[in-house]
Amino acid sequence: MATHSKKVFMQEVATRDGFQNEAQFIATEDKVRVVDALSLCGFAKIEVTSFTSPKAIPALRDAEDVMHQIKRQPGVEYTVLVPNVRGAERALSCGIDEANLVMSMSETHNRSNLRMTREQSFEQLRQVVAAISGSRVAINISLSTTFGCPMEGDVSEDEVMRWLDRFADIGVKRATLCDTTGMAYPSQVRSMASRAQQLHPDMAFTMHFHNTRSMAQANALASLSAGINRFDASLGGIGGCPYAPGASGNACTEDMVHMLELEGFDTGVDLNKLLEVSRTLPTLIGHDIPSQLLKAGPRLALHPAPEYTRDVK
Amino acid sequence: MATHSKKVFMQEVATRDGFQNEAQFIATEDKVRVVDALSLCGFAKIEVTSFTSPKAIPALRDAEDVMHQIKRQPGVEYTVLVPNVRGAERALSCGIDEANLVMSMSETHNRSNLRMTREQSFEQLRQVVAAISGSRVAINISLSTTFGCPMEGDVSEDEVMRWLDRFADIGVKRATLCDTTGMAYPSQVRSMASRAQQLHPDMAFTMHFHNTRSMAQANALASLSAGINRFDASLGGIGGCPYAPGASGNACTEDMVHMLELEGFDTGVDLNKLLEVSRTLPTLIGHDIPSQLLKAGPRLALHPAPEYTRDVK
Repeated sequence: MATHSKKVFMQEVATRDGFQNEAQFIATEDKVRVVDALSLCGFAKIEVTSFTSPKAIPALRDAEDVMHQIKRQPGVEYTVLVPNVRGAERALSCGIDEANLVMSMSETHNRSNLRMTREQSFEQLRQVVAAISGSRVAINISLSTTFGCPMEGDVSEDEVMRWLDRFADIGVKRATLCDTTGMAYPSQVRSMASRAQQLHPDMAFTMHFHNTRSMAQANALASLSAGINRFDASLGGIGGCPYAPGASGNACTEDMVHMLELEGFDTGVDLNKLLEVSRTLPTLIGHDIPSQLLKAGPRLALHPAPEYTRDVK
Repeated sequence: MATHSKKVFMQEVATRDGFQNEAQFIATEDKVRVVDALSLCGFAKIEVTSFTSPKAIPALRDAEDVMHQIKRQPGVEYTVLVPNVRGAERALSCGIDEANLVMSMSETHNRSNLRMTREQSFEQLRQVVAAISGSRVAINISLSTTFGCPMEGDVSEDEVMRWLDRFADIGVKRATLCDTTGMAYPSQVRSMASRAQQLHPDMAFTMHFHNTRSMAQANALASLSAGINRFDASLGGIGGCPYAPGASGNACTEDMVHMLELEGFDTGVDLNKLLEVSRTLPTLIGHDIPSQLLKAGPRLALHPAPEYTRDVK
């Protein structure tokens, strides 16, 4: 097992990746309240919202309002999803810290999800990079379906490395390897993580896992053993996978923080504060959430013994 | 990471550990059907039922009938839970391959769950061992709350080793380290597994995890890295944890088999056959089950691309 620093950077995505999937519109003031509460939990980064077209994702049509109303905390980076130059202009006017760009490693998934070829997506994102470069705003590229496509199947490491190279060539210094539909498994994660870092030692890599097939936590440990210590995760595990109705989607922040702290990593996140925020989600979004830790509590949150145990002799 | 054989032994517990927690009685013929289907999936062992008092666990009051009606397959061991000498006599009359004995590593949990002190439990199990010894029936001791007690908190490794020693002294050669309420975490599992095997190199160890806090899969990989390659798991993840209503209970067999096969282990289990059996559970028990794989399918069970993806150009 590789030696590793014990510091872990947690990046919360619930208000973007979670809320965008909710059928019911979440009021702007509620979104702001959740972001503000998350800002006090100790995250390295929060993905606040998305500057996609309000027609495409009406759930996040209040992106500007949310960005203007949140109370930013020093030490926390505020990132947003930016799909195109129009979105970049809107986002820049809100003083974002980072723009998160997305395209898919699978041609079919890119066409399905973004309705463009990958070449068209790359060209569009190249323009976004050009529009942002020179400002103080950082740029992150999120590579969807890095660990497999639900329509095409496996994606080769070579293909992922090819796109990483292209983004590195246009000056992008941050990349997220996304397991969009929960196809990643630990040995694959270790291999992909090792190769990506070897080829791009100056790039800051994030891992974005889904728990669709119950491997998000094992994959996080595999990443750490290969030296990647930045994770996206979603409060309560909200944010689904359209290919597996009823299955878990995004890796759950509180489940991941709980495990990583037990494993001796310093996530910087206050688990109790985090659980307080998670506890407000089911009412806010109107349905149960996949979080295991919210139901079970941290492992040493003890229960009283039944009365009769005293009478056993 | 320790070198390890790639063979893994899967032991199915759903018809005992799962069904005993169901409020609604499952008809004997349905239990038999499930066991018979599981017998064809490639398990090393199946825990069929429990010879506890029918008053204590009415859900399994048909233990003799189930044992007599199932069609046993060569190569599969059929084990049952045996709490006392009366249960042992009933079980022996059914031609079991193994008797699974249980006591708790936490005094409070033993009093709460078994209504005896641990000393009283040990004495009762010693009598069971004496009653069975000399027959061709194997004996396994399952040590509950090995990785923590929901009422007492952490259980020390020394305490677990002390009880392992006592059972080894009376001739028990198989032991299961049980994470009864999902408190185990990977580094703890590696440490406990290493020490147990070091002190008892001739004992066959099984790991029994619960996914209550989303760590069952990571714990399974931790066990394997420490050289323990036998796992209990429950079809569909059925069988709950009374301390965490709504949370997952037993590690889910199909989720574990899917991951272990991807990691290059040979579980011997036919995942497709297994999923066919799992698919019958929600109707049989009348509620949804925690299985992720049943909802999402194996990672390479692909979906068709939407029509419009062809028109993207």
